[in-house]
Amino acid sequence: MKVETLRWIDNKLEMIDQRILPASFEYLAYDSAASVAEGIRSMVVRGAPAIGVAAAYGVALEALRLSSEPRHSGLDPESSALKKLDSRLRGNDEAEDFNAGMEAGFTVLAQSRPTAVNLFWGLQRMRAVWESVQGQSNAAVAQRLLAEAHEILAEDIRINRAMGAFGAELLADGARVLTHCNAGALATAGHGTALGVFRSAVEAGKKISVIADETRPFLQGARLTAWEMVQENIPVTLITDNMAGFMMSRGEVDAVVVGTDRVASNGDVANKIGTYMVAVLARRHNIPFYVACPLSTIDMSIVSGADIPIEERSADEVKGFRDYHWAAEGVSIRNPSFDVTPAELVTALITEKGVVRQPDRDKLRALFK
Amino acid sequence: MKVETLRWIDNKLEMIDQRILPASFEYLAYDSAASVAEGIRSMVVRGAPAIGVAAAYGVALEALRLSSEPRHSGLDPESSALKKLDSRLRGNDEAEDFNAGMEAGFTVLAQSRPTAVNLFWGLQRMRAVWESVQGQSNAAVAQRLLAEAHEILAEDIRINRAMGAFGAELLADGARVLTHCNAGALATAGHGTALGVFRSAVEAGKKISVIADETRPFLQGARLTAWEMVQENIPVTLITDNMAGFMMSRGEVDAVVVGTDRVASNGDVANKIGTYMVAVLARRHNIPFYVACPLSTIDMSIVSGADIPIEERSADEVKGFRDYHWAAEGVSIRNPSFDVTPAELVTALITEKGVVRQPDRDKLRALFK
Repeated sequence: MKVETLRWIDNKLEMIDQRILPASFEYLAYDSAASVAEGIRSMVVRGAPAIGVAAAYGVALEALRLSSEPRHSGLDPESSALKKLDSRLRGNDEAEDFNAGMEAGFTVLAQSRPTAVNLFWGLQRMRAVWESVQGQSNAAVAQRLLAEAHEILAEDIRINRAMGAFGAELLADGARVLTHCNAGALATAGHGTALGVFRSAVEAGKKISVIADETRPFLQGARLTAWEMVQENIPVTLITDNMAGFMMSRGEVDAVVVGTDRVASNGDVANKIGTYMVAVLARRHNIPFYVACPLSTIDMSIVSGADIPIEERSADEVKGFRDYHWAAEGVSIRNPSFDVTPAELVTALITEKGVVRQPDRDKLRALFK
Repeated sequence: MKVETLRWIDNKLEMIDQRILPASFEYLAYDSAASVAEGIRSMVVRGAPAIGVAAAYGVALEALRLSSEPRHSGLDPESSALKKLDSRLRGNDEAEDFNAGMEAGFTVLAQSRPTAVNLFWGLQRMRAVWESVQGQSNAAVAQRLLAEAHEILAEDIRINRAMGAFGAELLADGARVLTHCNAGALATAGHGTALGVFRSAVEAGKKISVIADETRPFLQGARLTAWEMVQENIPVTLITDNMAGFMMSRGEVDAVVVGTDRVASNGDVANKIGTYMVAVLARRHNIPFYVACPLSTIDMSIVSGADIPIEERSADEVKGFRDYHWAAEGVSIRNPSFDVTPAELVTALITEKGVVRQPDRDKLRALFK
């Protein structure tokens, strides 16, 4: 089964509702920047690359919406004498309204989630395209932005396949590979980053098996990674997050591959909360720790992981799961959604341009040349 | 609120049903070794010291049950001529039945859970008492065993208070202390081991705050530790297990205190799954890692942690929580319930005889002299 995390149907963006997987498989439809932003915030869609693609579509949807909206100057267009004036005023108004609407759309999307840099990367790319077509009709601008969103989606899959090929070479036949969270097809436009490496390894004829951390509190591992691997017939074993050290200490993990939400220019890696603990344990047990990371996830504008904003989400997520709460009443709760793994613990970054061992500033800078 | 994890009422053992806390607070009553064994196995009661106390009561209950059961030789006691013979046969039968019944009781209790050594320690202590009163009437034996179970319970609380006093000295005023699982009043006859240290620190006038790992899959931290600390008005913050490294990396943890299910003679510590990961992270961040450990938890008969049997529990626990399953269908599951932290990562054991820094075989041997 090919997982289409995001798809364009009837001039709307449809996204798989990842909050209800795997019990239910359902697409939700989006037709504006605000609705896409809410879909990102509420984690209908999640995973850094998928968020970047969704944000790009959010911009395109906003342009389509604004360009098709009936506008009115406030003057009565039936009055023949005023028709010409109205039309002229409307023209100015329309351009201004469109631009203001687009800015509002960019803002609401940028505020949806703070950590994944792909969101901002996607928005910047869309803004550059928008600026390049200033002066064209709103409808033409919207079509150009939609074409760019389609291109970002297609490109994401190509990039994941390139990363997958490079990453697959790092895994030995028979490797038992641990992953945290879901850096799969569901976290991207398709194929996946970390899970893309597993898919590519299997396509290359390697027998591998996957150990999936369940990844509290949102349970991306138990619900999404396990589901994707079962769909692909790749053997997958689910453990709770606190079992990773046990598995490593028993010699049952040959490698770790995870995704990332933002890599700083020095190679520090922000990823789903708990990744840092896996990385520390992997180092202790001399297990290679790989990060699958498209260039769009590398943020050369920040010096180190200390500059990466870490989202703290609602306490409700930690109290239980969905509406089922088990925590004692009256307890305080913390819910940081990401942590930072220092570059020194990263064996290699897997990018679409190749494998970067022991990443540092110079090596990352070279990637962008 | 004083938590009475186990209590003796109407010639029955009553135990708080820890599977349904904190939403429901309910005692279940037990009247035989087999029922107590099932209570241990299904985790109505859990925590190494509490399991030891429960097992002792299980032996006493079996003796009471066997000594009060109406027996019959199979001969008709109405036949006057046979009454004397029946009585004599019955006497022999009764002694044999009693002994066989007791052995069966010991066996079923010993098979309830494999990792916590307190279970075997409690059973051995009860067996020694039983052997010391051989020849006495069954009823007298039962009463002696019941008295011993009461003594083990009372002793456990005294020991926890002694450990608490020693441990409290290790915590600075204002310390933010992380704990994993529940080594509280609920894991003991009262006061607790790790949480006993926190209670004693507060009684000594120290302001401390507790960070509780939720402790998947059974959620002892979210349900039991958080509940106990809220009851005591000790500030407590709940995190998922994979957040401990983040909290440490942010300088938000001053010490770790955990309990243990078995300490090997070299100081290796078996405790709830995930403890090892916390210990490795604590070492990386130079945070002291303390283990509250009554002498009954130290198993001098084994050389190292590699000899400690690690229980693997049902896959259902990892699929979700209680009857709510969220994991993808078709995934394999591992569920080791404990892991082993090597002695080198243990800053100190806190025992009722004092604090043992950098524990090793010689220091542990000295404790038992």
